Amino acid sequence: MSAPKEGVVLVGAKPTMNYVLATVIQFNQGAEKVIIKARGRAISKAVDTAEITRLRFLAGQVDVSEVRIGTEKVGEPGKERSVSTIEIVLTRKA
Amino acid sequence: MSAPKEGVVLVGAKPTMNYVLATVIQFNQGAEKVIIKARGRAISKAVDTAEITRLRFLAGQVDVSEVRIGTEKVGEPGKERSVSTIEIVLTRKA
Repeated sequence: MSAPKEGVVLVGAKPTMNYVLATVIQFNQGAEKVIIKARGRAISKAVDTAEITRLRFLAGQVDVSEVRIGTEKVGEPGKERSVSTIEIVLTRKA
Repeated sequence: MSAPKEGVVLVGAKPTMNYVLATVIQFNQGAEKVIIKARGRAISKAVDTAEITRLRFLAGQVDVSEVRIGTEKVGEPGKERSVSTIEIVLTRKA
């Protein structure tokens, strides 16, 4: 099995460093691109994850190639509410 | 005095809707572009501010033209720490 070229890290309630390590591991396994995703209050943690990865663990090796924000509906039908989302794309430098 | 073409909204500890209204007012006063900025845990609120402005209050009138993330040093010399930042650029549609 070859490692996927594109990885995804879903940021949630765990400590930031868990997601940093998940991101670093995906790059070390050969990913060219890792998308760090979060919703709601985890959005700040997703930015921390990207910045710590980029500046400390993989300094000089990866760049933020894109940041997308959006809105999703969550919750049961009839009780839906909107939640903001973020996707930060880290790409290995050429 | 003419209204500035480019506005800035600094998102902090107040309720999200304060920042949404600040953003809407700047567009209504003639801004072509409003940059929504935040640091640390206010980053999630900055994304909410941009999304609520774009989808609810100025639906069809503004777009997210750019999202930048970064890191700043804060605190006194010798006790500095890093904090993540975000800048979301909303631009009036042509």
